[in-house]
This record gives sequence, C-alpha cells and structure tokens, in this order.
Amino acid sequence: MKLAQLAELVGGKLIGRSDREINGVSQVDLVRPDEVTFIADRKYLSLLEGKDPAAVLVGEQIEQISCPQVIVADPYMAALQLAGEFAPHECPPPGIDKTAVVHQTATIHETATVSALCVVEAGASVGAHTVLMPQVYVGPDAGIGEGCTLHPGTRIGERCVLGDRVTCHHNVSIGSDGFGYAQIDGAHVPIPQRGIVVVEDDVDIGAGSCVDRATFGRTIIGAGTKIDNLVQVAHNCIIGKRCLLVSQVGLAGSVTIGDDSIMAARAAAVPHARIGKKCIVGAMAAVRKDLPDGSIVGGVPAKDHMAWKREIVALDKLPQALKDLRRLSRRVEELEKGRDEGG
Amino acid sequence: MKLAQLAELVGGKLIGRSDREINGVSQVDLVRPDEVTFIADRKYLSLLEGKDPAAVLVGEQIEQISCPQVIVADPYMAALQLAGEFAPHECPPPGIDKTAVVHQTATIHETATVSALCVVEAGASVGAHTVLMPQVYVGPDAGIGEGCTLHPGTRIGERCVLGDRVTCHHNVSIGSDGFGYAQIDGAHVPIPQRGIVVVEDDVDIGAGSCVDRATFGRTIIGAGTKIDNLVQVAHNCIIGKRCLLVSQVGLAGSVTIGDDSIMAARAAAVPHARIGKKCIVGAMAAVRKDLPDGSIVGGVPAKDHMAWKREIVALDKLPQALKDLRRLSRRVEELEKGRDEGG
Amino acid sequence: MKLAQLAELVGGKLIGRSDREINGVSQVDLVRPDEVTFIADRKYLSLLEGKDPAAVLVGEQIEQISCPQVIVADPYMAALQLAGEFAPHECPPPGIDKTAVVHQTATIHETATVSALCVVEAGASVGAHTVLMPQVYVGPDAGIGEGCTLHPGTRIGERCVLGDRVTCHHNVSIGSDGFGYAQIDGAHVPIPQRGIVVVEDDVDIGAGSCVDRATFGRTIIGAGTKIDNLVQVAHNCIIGKRCLLVSQVGLAGSVTIGDDSIMAARAAAVPHARIGKKCIVGAMAAVRKDLPDGSIVGGVPAKDHMAWKREIVALDKLPQALKDLRRLSRRVEELEKGRDEGG
Repeated sequence: MKLAQLAELVGGKLIGRSDREINGVSQVDLVRPDEVTFIADRKYLSLLEGKDPAAVLVGEQIEQISCPQVIVADPYMAALQLAGEFAPHECPPPGIDKTAVVHQTATIHETATVSALCVVEAGASVGAHTVLMPQVYVGPDAGIGEGCTLHPGTRIGERCVLGDRVTCHHNVSIGSDGFGYAQIDGAHVPIPQRGIVVVEDDVDIGAGSCVDRATFGRTIIGAGTKIDNLVQVAHNCIIGKRCLLVSQVGLAGSVTIGDDSIMAARAAAVPHARIGKKCIVGAMAAVRKDLPDGSIVGGVPAKDHMAWKREIVALDKLPQALKDLRRLSRRVEELEKGRDEGG
Repeated sequence: MKLAQLAELVGGKLIGRSDREINGVSQVDLVRPDEVTFIADRKYLSLLEGKDPAAVLVGEQIEQISCPQVIVADPYMAALQLAGEFAPHECPPPGIDKTAVVHQTATIHETATVSALCVVEAGASVGAHTVLMPQVYVGPDAGIGEGCTLHPGTRIGERCVLGDRVTCHHNVSIGSDGFGYAQIDGAHVPIPQRGIVVVEDDVDIGAGSCVDRATFGRTIIGAGTKIDNLVQVAHNCIIGKRCLLVSQVGLAGSVTIGDDSIMAARAAAVPHARIGKKCIVGAMAAVRKDLPDGSIVGGVPAKDHMAWKREIVALDKLPQALKDLRRLSRRVEELEKGRDEGG
Repeated sequence: MKLAQLAELVGGKLIGRSDREINGVSQVDLVRPDEVTFIADRKYLSLLEGKDPAAVLVGEQIEQISCPQVIVADPYMAALQLAGEFAPHECPPPGIDKTAVVHQTATIHETATVSALCVVEAGASVGAHTVLMPQVYVGPDAGIGEGCTLHPGTRIGERCVLGDRVTCHHNVSIGSDGFGYAQIDGAHVPIPQRGIVVVEDDVDIGAGSCVDRATFGRTIIGAGTKIDNLVQVAHNCIIGKRCLLVSQVGLAGSVTIGDDSIMAARAAAVPHARIGKKCIVGAMAAVRKDLPDGSIVGGVPAKDHMAWKREIVALDKLPQALKDLRRLSRRVEELEKGRDEGG
C-alpha cells in the first residue's frame, strides 16, 4: 500500500512524501522503514529517535518528526484500523472437518465450524457461526452458543454451558473438577464435583486459564466479563457481569464478585469472600474480608487503597524510624538521668 | 424426581408439600424453583431471601424457611449424594478408539480406555481400568498404573511413571524439562534433564499444573497428595504423602516436603528448601529457610504465623506510629531545651 | 553397566569394588542400590545416611563414604554425562505422520518431523531438523525455524515467527490475543490484536507459559532467553537477549527488558515498565517504575535490594518497636509532668 492510499483509508491528512510502500503497522519501539507507527502521547516521541518509519499517525502535526505524518482524529484507532487491513482476520469455512471426531448424538449447527482433530462428545451442541479451531474438546452434553470461538487446546467439560460470542484462547480449561476433599482417617477423599460451569454471553477467557465446575450447582462467569491468561477461578465462584480478571488472578472457592468489578493482575480472594459491585482490587492484593460496593483496595491483606499507599510510604521510612526511635530513647534516658540527678 | 422420592433417597424427613418436580441440586445463592439446596450453617440463611427452592436440606427444622424442608443427619453429604443422582458419572467403555495413535510396542490393558485422538508412544503401558480421555499424550516408555483418569490435554513425558488411581485434569504437564542452565561465555546452555517424574498412588493433579522431570533421578509426588490447578513443581522436588498443594503454588527446584503438609494457595518455596511433616504454609507465604515438622508459617519471607499476624497488625498502625514518633521527638526537644535553659 | 565400565566412561578413578550392576543416576536423597549418585558439596553428605548407592561420584576421596567412589574432575558434569548414557535422547525420524493434518500450502522441510495428530495450517512453514511432537498446532502463515522442538500441546498462533533452535514445552501458547479492551458505554469491547509474536533463536519456553501477540507490531522474546513454566508475557512486551524468566513470572503489556536480565520466580512488572540490561528482579518482586541497567531489586513495590533487606529486618522488629514507642511516650509524659510540676 502506498502512503497516499493509507492516508485516504484512515481519512487523514498527509504531510510529506507519499510514495513509500507500506507493509504493516508497529509499536513505535520496533517500527521498520516499511511500516507506519503512531504517537498518541508526545511523551513517547523520544522512542522515535534513530527510527525511520514510513509515516507516523499523529493527532496534530508534530514539528520534531521529520518523516511523513498523517494527521487523524485518533491515532490509536487509525493504527488499529490499519492493523486490520494488513492482517485481516479470516473466518474458516463452516463444516465438520473429516478428522474431527463428532459423536452421532451431538448437534452441530450447519453454519458452525468444527476443525481438524476436534472431539465433540455425545449430546453436546455447537451453535450457529461458532468456530471450534483444531484440537478442541467439547465434553458430553456440553452446550456451546452462537458466534463463539474456541482456540486450539480449549477443553470444555461435560455439561458445561457457554453462551453466545464467547472466546476461549489456547488451552483454556472449563469445567475441571473443583479442589474439594474430605479428611477421612488422615486421607484426602475426593468430594464428587457434579455441578457445572456457566459462561454467559460475550465472555473472553485467556490462554491457560481454568474455571472449575461447581461441587453442586454452577460456577458462573457473568456476561461481558473478560478474563486474561493463567487465571484460576475455583468451584462455585459467581463472577458478575462486565468484570475484568487480569492475568494470574486467583479466586478460591465460592468467591462472589459483583458487576463491573476489576481484579488487577495477580489479585486474589480467599474462599467465600464476597466482593461488591464496581470494586477495584489492586494488583497482587489479597482479599480476606467481604468488600462493599465501590471498594478500592490494595495490599496483603487487602485494605483501603489510600491506607495501603500510606503504609507503603511508611514502610520505606521504617528502617530510619527504628534508628530514630533508639536515638530518642537514649535522649530520654539522658533527660531522666538529669532529672534524677537534679532531683 | 418428586420431592417425596428425594427425601426417601437421602433418608430424610420431609416437612411441607411433596409434589414439586426436582431437576438438580444447587448452592443456595443460585437455587432455582426446580432445584433443592442445603443449609449446613445458619449464617447462610440470608442467602435464601428471594429464592424459591423446591426444598432445603437441613440438619434440623428451621422456622424461618417457608419452603419444604428435608431433615437429614448431614445436609452437605445429602446434597452430594443427590448431585451424583442427578448427574451420574459414566465411565467410557474399555477399548482403543480407532482414531487413537498407539504404538505397536505399547501395552494397553484390555480393560483400559484409550479415547479418540490420544497418542501412546513406543514402550508405554496403560494399566487396568485406566481411562485416557481424548487428546491425551503418553510419551515413550511412560507407565500409567491402574484405575487412573487422564483428562483431555494431559501430557505425560517419556519414562515418567504414574501409580494407581491417579487423576490428571485438563492440560496437566508431567515430565517437562526442568529449568536448568549452565552459564557458559554469557550464554545459558541447557543442562540435559534426563531424570523422570514418579507420581505415586491416589494423587490428583489439577488443570494446567506442571511437574517437571528431574535433572537426574526422580521428581516425586507422594501417595495421596492432591495438587490444585496451575501449580508449579520444579525438577527434583520430593513431595511427601497426603500433602495438599493449593492453586498457584510454586515450588522451586529440589524442594522437599514431608508427609501431611499443606501449601495454601500461591505459597512458594525457594530452591532446596526442606519443609517438614505436618507443616502449614499460609496462602502467598514464601518459604526461604528449612521448616521443622509441624511448622505453621505465613508472610514473605515466611515466619511463624503468630509473629506474622502480629506484624500484619503492627503494619496497620505504622503510619500513625511514625507521626507519633515525630511528635514525641519534638516533645523531647522541648524537654531538652527546658533542661538546657534551666541548666 | 558395571562400575568399572562406568568409571572408565567418565574418566574417573574407582575406589572400591567394581562389579555392581548399575542402572541409573539419581540425586542423593533417593539413590537406590543399583544407581550411582554424586556429592558436589560436602554439606550434602548427611543425605547419604542409610543409603546404599552402587557408587558415589566425588571430586576427591571422602573418608566418610563407605561405598565405592569414583573420583572425577567435576562430579555434577560426570553425573549429567551418565544420565545421558542411561537415558539417551532419541530424535524421532523425519517425515510427516499420516495422522497429521498439514495444509497443502504449508512448507515442511524434508528433514523435519511432523508427528501424529499435529495440525499445520495454510501458509505455515517448518524448518530443517525441526521436530513437532504429537498434537502440536501451527497456525496459518506461522514460521518455525530450524532445529526447533515443539512438545505436545504447543500452540503457535497465526503469523507468529520462531527462530532456530527454539524449544517449547508442553502446552505452551504463543500468539494468543493480548488482553486489550476499550470501555464503550460500560461494556468492554475487544481491541483487535493483529500483531504477532517473534521468538528469536535459542529460546526455551516452559510448560504452560503464554506469550501474547502484539496489538500491532511485535511481542519479542530475544535470542538466548529462557522462560520457565507458567509464565505470562503480555502483548507488546520486548524481552532482550539472554534473559531468564523464572516460573510464574508475570509481565504486563508493553514491558521492555534489556539484555542479560533476570526476573526471579514470580516477579512481575506493571504495564510499560522499562527494565534495563543486566538487572536482577528478585523473587516475587513487583516492578512499578523503570529500572536503570544493573539494578538489583526486591519487594512489592520493588526497591533496591539492600533497602528491601533492611526493610525485611525492620519489619521483624516492628511489633516490639511499637511497644517501645508507647513506653517511651509514657516516660516523656512523666518527664513533662516533672518539668511542669517543677516549673
């Protein structure tokens, strides 16, 4: 694509020569001479040093940039649009691959795709326009809604239910057994885990993440919730709608989270913790007590994030404070000695 | 199933009408009109508000519950029994699926199941009544005992050995190479990892968990130990019998853990740490030193859990204490000034 | 193998009887009568108690050892050599297994191995002497270099690029979508992730680890970098050459790490953090700010490791210090009272 074409495509105004051939979009750190990049914030301008991009997408002309510029309303959105142009996403054609193993009692919608080496067990169903990429497993009586995409290695356990437009990335586990044991004569005897997982509409689940089936009843991931990679959701958790669970989050059994809450990276919660709506649990924080709606917390154990920040600052000063305390103690001793001698 | 039938099944006494149709068991938060639930502890009674379960399993009659009640000795166990009734676990029939790829030198017991799209490599063996669910990999010369269940995506590396009644959940990795490198001229040169993993009898391993093979010799998971999801066990670890490793635990190389110890969620231990028998390492705690039998520890680095709790409490008071210290310092200054002026 | 043979093999001097049959090498804790072990450091001598190894590899004769000894220049290296002898690594023969599903437009080098039940999609390429073990997925237009080994369950997303001699262990995910959403009317709308992952030469990636594709441009793992199990590398990260990322490390989006840096077990970094060259980020540390070259940090948030160690020590003393502070306050009160009464 020539630069002139590209500028037209994003509805931008081109400043500079227009004939360079462009083959892609890149973040500014890595941009090559045949790629465009974008500057959404001038603080990243220094990253352009030594680079020779074909052009830079900008919100307004930037004097310091010597290469061609394309002025657009939103450089980030324009870059996204171009990324889609250079690497369009192609949906595989519908149909059941001849190497897939689909039980005769399974129901596959005629517009669905079941790719190579998938297994769909007895009684399972796959909805319209859903794509099972290669090597996916759908267990007995599991139900997959419409418009879902299950990436290679996704495992859906028996009887689990996915709504519409659910995406599971590489090697996701839905409906593995919860970690429940009864101690009998010193041994850990497994408690049967016979509930299911319900993943509601518009949920994304990241690579390697695990959502365990309920002991009884349902583990629920609410509609519109997005889960990052390597997240653990234990049995009987009930996650609200439109929550974000960032990478490596760990939720113990029976945790409930209200709608629109965020668990930042590697945040955690103990069994049965009840986290309200619109809460923000900071990265690496560990929730030990119920949180009311709107809570913002940090730390281990989690506390109000302002209190936690004060703690962080105080901790920094602690080694010096201990020295000060010892010195003060000696001064008081001196004063006491003076008083006693004076008395 | 009618409620009367259900009450008889669990040997309970029914209070209330008996004709509602029941289709399942659920945790109380989510119970539907066609499901039963249970109350094992009155503190969860408030969760029943606004719910209309077909019946509640209780240990003794509870006045505040208006729907039918079934009085049983142990409501939780009764609920478990019913969950099994509503969703019975069906074992797949024995035999080797025609899409499985089994090497001619592998030994598959005639009562074992090798499901669709499994791979069993040369010299491997699969014991009586063991079930390989679809898409499992068993490497060369690996040995799987009797009565095991390997869920879809389980990978057993070459020469690794599983005892009897071992369960591996979705996408478990047994016998991947340990993380060992020699620094040679600034490069990280891999140290060959030629040992194996031995998983003893009655071990469960959760979805996505990884147990690396030993550099030489054996990484061992002791009999009856249960491992949750997304746990990392590095090369040459020796885990005792009947231990619990809860979700996201991470053990560095050559850690040893005695029998009957518990690593709570996301606990960790440094290389070569020796943790005794019947120890409890609290959630998120990091073991840096050897722990004698019976230790109970928490924190980073891990210390006696009472000391750690005192520390948590003290930390809460720290910001105020620093203010107090500054104020006290000024008061001492005043006193010193008074003394010096007085002197 | 007889012990005499073994001693000759490692170029060692045998002390003791030479006729025992030897079947393997083991770490000292577990060594059996038909195995040899090694003592590289006398502090591990006590582990030999009660053991009866066929022989011990030592650097110099050790009086306290009663069983045969083999004196070698480097006992650890000799043990490694023997481990390779007892369990030689066999490369599978080249060729495409008849159960593999390889698109007609994919390019497989004639010396490459594509094992059972692999999928190689349209336009993908697999280089010379590369081994795809069973059940691997290589997405459309992905490029795998020469001499790579992809273990069972590895998933390579579309258009991602692996250099030469790259190893991916069980269930690795390369090129899953990054976790990027735009908040539109309260919903989380996925931002298309159309960039790729570039894994340079001589990189190892551990079991279950995930490297997400860039939003645009490239997520990069630099040449010679080694990644352990269950590590998360988010979209647009740029990892330098010869870095080590130990188990359970988590890197948020757009983190950059300079050459020769180490992230110890479960270390983490916030989005856009820039970590310099030759840095060491301690186990469980959380990098919140950019780090200059050569930084050594620990703690949450990460600070200079000496400051962090002082903090750890101070924290230990904190509960007592708070008591001391209260006592001191009372003593100052007494002094003030004395002054006021005296005045």
